[in-house]
Amino acid sequence: MTRIAILGAAGYTALELIKILLRHPEAEIATVTDLQEGRPPIAMIHPSLANRLDVCVEKLSPAEVAARADCVFACLPHGVSASIIPSLLDAGARVVDFSADYRLNDPEVFATWYNQKHGDPQRLGKVVYGLPELFRDGIVDAPLVANPGCFPTSTILPLAPLLKAGMIEPRGIIVDSKTGISGAGRTPKLTTHYPECNESLSAYNVGRHRHIPEMEQILGTAAGTRVEVIFSPHLVPMDRGILTTTYSQPTAELSEENVLQTLRDFYAEEPFVRVVDHLPGTKDSTGTNFCDLTARIVRGRVLTISCLDNLLKGASGAAVQNFNLMYGYPETTAL
Amino acid sequence: MTRIAILGAAGYTALELIKILLRHPEAEIATVTDLQEGRPPIAMIHPSLANRLDVCVEKLSPAEVAARADCVFACLPHGVSASIIPSLLDAGARVVDFSADYRLNDPEVFATWYNQKHGDPQRLGKVVYGLPELFRDGIVDAPLVANPGCFPTSTILPLAPLLKAGMIEPRGIIVDSKTGISGAGRTPKLTTHYPECNESLSAYNVGRHRHIPEMEQILGTAAGTRVEVIFSPHLVPMDRGILTTTYSQPTAELSEENVLQTLRDFYAEEPFVRVVDHLPGTKDSTGTNFCDLTARIVRGRVLTISCLDNLLKGASGAAVQNFNLMYGYPETTAL
Amino acid sequence: MTRIAILGAAGYTALELIKILLRHPEAEIATVTDLQEGRPPIAMIHPSLANRLDVCVEKLSPAEVAARADCVFACLPHGVSASIIPSLLDAGARVVDFSADYRLNDPEVFATWYNQKHGDPQRLGKVVYGLPELFRDGIVDAPLVANPGCFPTSTILPLAPLLKAGMIEPRGIIVDSKTGISGAGRTPKLTTHYPECNESLSAYNVGRHRHIPEMEQILGTAAGTRVEVIFSPHLVPMDRGILTTTYSQPTAELSEENVLQTLRDFYAEEPFVRVVDHLPGTKDSTGTNFCDLTARIVRGRVLTISCLDNLLKGASGAAVQNFNLMYGYPETTAL
Amino acid sequence: MTRIAILGAAGYTALELIKILLRHPEAEIATVTDLQEGRPPIAMIHPSLANRLDVCVEKLSPAEVAARADCVFACLPHGVSASIIPSLLDAGARVVDFSADYRLNDPEVFATWYNQKHGDPQRLGKVVYGLPELFRDGIVDAPLVANPGCFPTSTILPLAPLLKAGMIEPRGIIVDSKTGISGAGRTPKLTTHYPECNESLSAYNVGRHRHIPEMEQILGTAAGTRVEVIFSPHLVPMDRGILTTTYSQPTAELSEENVLQTLRDFYAEEPFVRVVDHLPGTKDSTGTNFCDLTARIVRGRVLTISCLDNLLKGASGAAVQNFNLMYGYPETTAL
Repeated sequence: MTRIAILGAAGYTALELIKILLRHPEAEIATVTDLQEGRPPIAMIHPSLANRLDVCVEKLSPAEVAARADCVFACLPHGVSASIIPSLLDAGARVVDFSADYRLNDPEVFATWYNQKHGDPQRLGKVVYGLPELFRDGIVDAPLVANPGCFPTSTILPLAPLLKAGMIEPRGIIVDSKTGISGAGRTPKLTTHYPECNESLSAYNVGRHRHIPEMEQILGTAAGTRVEVIFSPHLVPMDRGILTTTYSQPTAELSEENVLQTLRDFYAEEPFVRVVDHLPGTKDSTGTNFCDLTARIVRGRVLTISCLDNLLKGASGAAVQNFNLMYGYPETTAL
Repeated sequence: MTRIAILGAAGYTALELIKILLRHPEAEIATVTDLQEGRPPIAMIHPSLANRLDVCVEKLSPAEVAARADCVFACLPHGVSASIIPSLLDAGARVVDFSADYRLNDPEVFATWYNQKHGDPQRLGKVVYGLPELFRDGIVDAPLVANPGCFPTSTILPLAPLLKAGMIEPRGIIVDSKTGISGAGRTPKLTTHYPECNESLSAYNVGRHRHIPEMEQILGTAAGTRVEVIFSPHLVPMDRGILTTTYSQPTAELSEENVLQTLRDFYAEEPFVRVVDHLPGTKDSTGTNFCDLTARIVRGRVLTISCLDNLLKGASGAAVQNFNLMYGYPETTAL
Repeated sequence: MTRIAILGAAGYTALELIKILLRHPEAEIATVTDLQEGRPPIAMIHPSLANRLDVCVEKLSPAEVAARADCVFACLPHGVSASIIPSLLDAGARVVDFSADYRLNDPEVFATWYNQKHGDPQRLGKVVYGLPELFRDGIVDAPLVANPGCFPTSTILPLAPLLKAGMIEPRGIIVDSKTGISGAGRTPKLTTHYPECNESLSAYNVGRHRHIPEMEQILGTAAGTRVEVIFSPHLVPMDRGILTTTYSQPTAELSEENVLQTLRDFYAEEPFVRVVDHLPGTKDSTGTNFCDLTARIVRGRVLTISCLDNLLKGASGAAVQNFNLMYGYPETTAL
Repeated sequence: MTRIAILGAAGYTALELIKILLRHPEAEIATVTDLQEGRPPIAMIHPSLANRLDVCVEKLSPAEVAARADCVFACLPHGVSASIIPSLLDAGARVVDFSADYRLNDPEVFATWYNQKHGDPQRLGKVVYGLPELFRDGIVDAPLVANPGCFPTSTILPLAPLLKAGMIEPRGIIVDSKTGISGAGRTPKLTTHYPECNESLSAYNVGRHRHIPEMEQILGTAAGTRVEVIFSPHLVPMDRGILTTTYSQPTAELSEENVLQTLRDFYAEEPFVRVVDHLPGTKDSTGTNFCDLTARIVRGRVLTISCLDNLLKGASGAAVQNFNLMYGYPETTAL
């Protein structure tokens, strides 16, 4: 049995995390924390948890958290994570971090994209990126795992095998992503106000989204060379789900079957990647930890299409997959 | 040609009002006002108005408004309307008020339901309720028209003819309404944040909604006696539309045909009420100024079902219908 | 370990049932059947089951089904169930029936509401109604369980305790229900075609829905006298969820707290009924086997509001709850 | 006043067309036809037209149609149009055809993409493509106008000016489109059944959609050379709206301002194209005949984003724009 703390309890990723952990036979939710005053019951913040999790949301110091929990899931904003995690690690906790704070290797790149100095720069470059399909070995013993961003997971899973195999050009890769609105978090804003975004579709942060350096860094590792993506995210009127369509140039003539077989081989042993022949819909993977992938050749270009649930394989599901690896539980437990 | 001012330009009712008035051959939008600083173009606030209305949003005093406009549409919060409208009227403008400030006759009732003292109590009881189907004559010459609430319109139109005819009991009338989310306004809140209210249905303000005294007052006028409603509004994941289901006790045995014929007769000459035999859906009237009505008898109870677009027949469409009556234009102009 | 057969594999209730049973440590899905030719893999019919259930959909006789399975879940149309279930029972299988065929006690009532002669009339009146909160003892040893309809469950759970306690009048109970569109099944029709029903709300089968005799029969048992409901279902643009608002007359003066306490006491030991103080939204119970309930007093009437997931507590979740009781597994297993 | 016939009255494009024409001061709807027996009132097929258009749907021969109408809008399936339109033209009617039958110049290309021999091959190549922004002069006197497809309009409007100016490479243009579900028509299918496509996003007909040759032909005309697009359409859970994101290679170094200015200059006089600086959402143009366009440069690639209402600028709005040009009415009448 592993004692768990969840920091940042009010958001959607924390809610999904709790729902998964309630099914996990070896996880005990020891504490959930947030900045609210007065120890409200968790069910006041997430009514769906009534009669399921009977704890109050606390305000705790890192030391108090580490005293109560073996493993800490940090569902905190960028910047806040790096200010707290060093103390948690020093106090002996292991941490799965949902923020971007430990995903990038280079503090300069972090500062450029996140408009702030990194709070724990010397640790960068030593933290494992929590995508088990690429970095499983490093996760097993890691004190700290940087849980991937939702768009990067949906982009890296289809492209990494093709780049590794040298089948596609590493520059000029077009990544056109479409996400449900829960990806924007739980804080009300005009852009996520129902009558504004319902029955509407729009692009945002075109070429400027913070997930770009993360995609390029991890894909660069897979390719063994610098990778360059042109990334356009779009907001779709649905709760959950990401569909990412990528377009790249093959390095030599390829058939659709070549590409599909490369993907099938790469993921043959993976429990949560399904390489399919048909064009998947996001609903096929909603509520699951699966990523569905397929590929097409159109006029000599390689297209990939990938679907996943942004709150599960794109966040909390991946986090529990990492947790299972870190503590030696079967990787699919509770997922 | 009538010069128009619109106060409170940033909300959904103002947007719909502008769209209607742009089609109106006798309306000239002279000014739109709001509290923003710096005179932003209206298309910055409502991008759908780009290339359609080339005005800036201004901050104006009542005197300035009255100097520029013959008719003022006040899309202002409750309480604010009553603090501004007296000056507008004094300066010679005619006003269609979207707020609840002038709908109730009794300042005590207003104070009870709106938790504030009324700012212009001596005018209450002398302002016409802007539902042309019941009060057309009074609207024609009115300096000030109190534009009805969306739930009251959807409730009064089916019930007033039956109460007037003495066909149903005036007490214990159950009114179960369902509304799209634009009815909650344009200010972001957690309850209208997309991932909270999408794919969900909930009741709110059961028995405590501020439209209750308005329904009871107007239905009481129709019935010639005190009317009592039990009102439950529900929030439905769609942009627009209200469907109201009412349940009442007949005063004597009635057939479905009796009830339908009473409604058909009452609305025979009305351009915007459609008494239909089938069960209407809200989409039939979305984007129009129609209210669709039907009735059923179930186990001896009288049921009515009514549909309308909360932003049109429930707000801005009704306002233009009133405007047309006030200025002698054909009642259906631009609608 | 219990061997399971699922008949009628192509619908939404079968899909949800499979997803639950895949998490059930004591259930083994031995066969899934339907009328398709050619033994398609289940993942061709439900792509979300890829890599999760590796079986083909078969066409089997009742004898073949009973040879392979201990417990049969019949997700079949009304009328078809009664033509197959007798053979299954004779061959020794136990059955949970999702259709209405065995819910009513009286073959005449069945014939009136379902426009067909009942195929197995002598069994009617001897089959337990699968609502554990009312009939748990009878379910434990039953060879055949009639799984309740979704609207009846959402209506019976709030009203039965109040009728049993004699707190409300058994006649003239108004039941205004709102359901997501999965309740209409998986066969494409114009009324469930996306651009027709999206962004629209409508009533259907007002006073004529087939769940009416079922509600009245079970509530009549609770009340010990004939119960009469006036039932209006409405179709809401969302996938899942039912919210039912009821309005009834108290038999004596009552406070809100009286009513809530009666509900709390009645369900104090129930794992899947949550009596809450706030007004619940359907999303709180989506994806779960919970029914959320509350009550209000408005102008002397008793209102109840109940929410559940029509495919879970309203169908497949309830079926597994019954299965757990029938086979002696903890009632909440896999739920 | 021009007498109008509408063929194929049951679909969504016919409904939108009727709504526009009801506002048109110079259009008289003389007849609406379809294949239904028994002359049903149009409001039985489209309930939203009750009290607005009082005609019955007829089954008429081309000769009868031409006798009653000056201008015929053919909202018919591909293949059917080409079997009827020659007779209408011979009988003196002018025709706006919504099908693809007269959009392509080459009967071989038609046969390849539409899997059928063309029924009127000798007319191909002589019919004007009804996109006023490119072919206004040819539309004015045309007996027959081929109304454009929705995806082609959303693709041609942003790309044609850039190709014409030689600013982007004509090969390898990536076109990633996202459409609301009304684009799939009004016939119920599993893929457009609400619980299947709601809350889901999927790609379809990737690289094989029939709008590809149409885009390439018209863009080829603009470019003066062969154009090649890689086209992926996606289905989005909303009623209406298309957003198309294109990615192309500049022929020389370009700034964002260069591209935007080229678009602004090209469309300076166009009433229905809005070149905007911000990233538009589809809702800004829903219910209007506008196409909103913008452009970005990302890592040296040219991106365009365009939004329009697939049933209006993508179908019926464009048709009325063409009609206005054909009959000498102001181009924006009723739009």
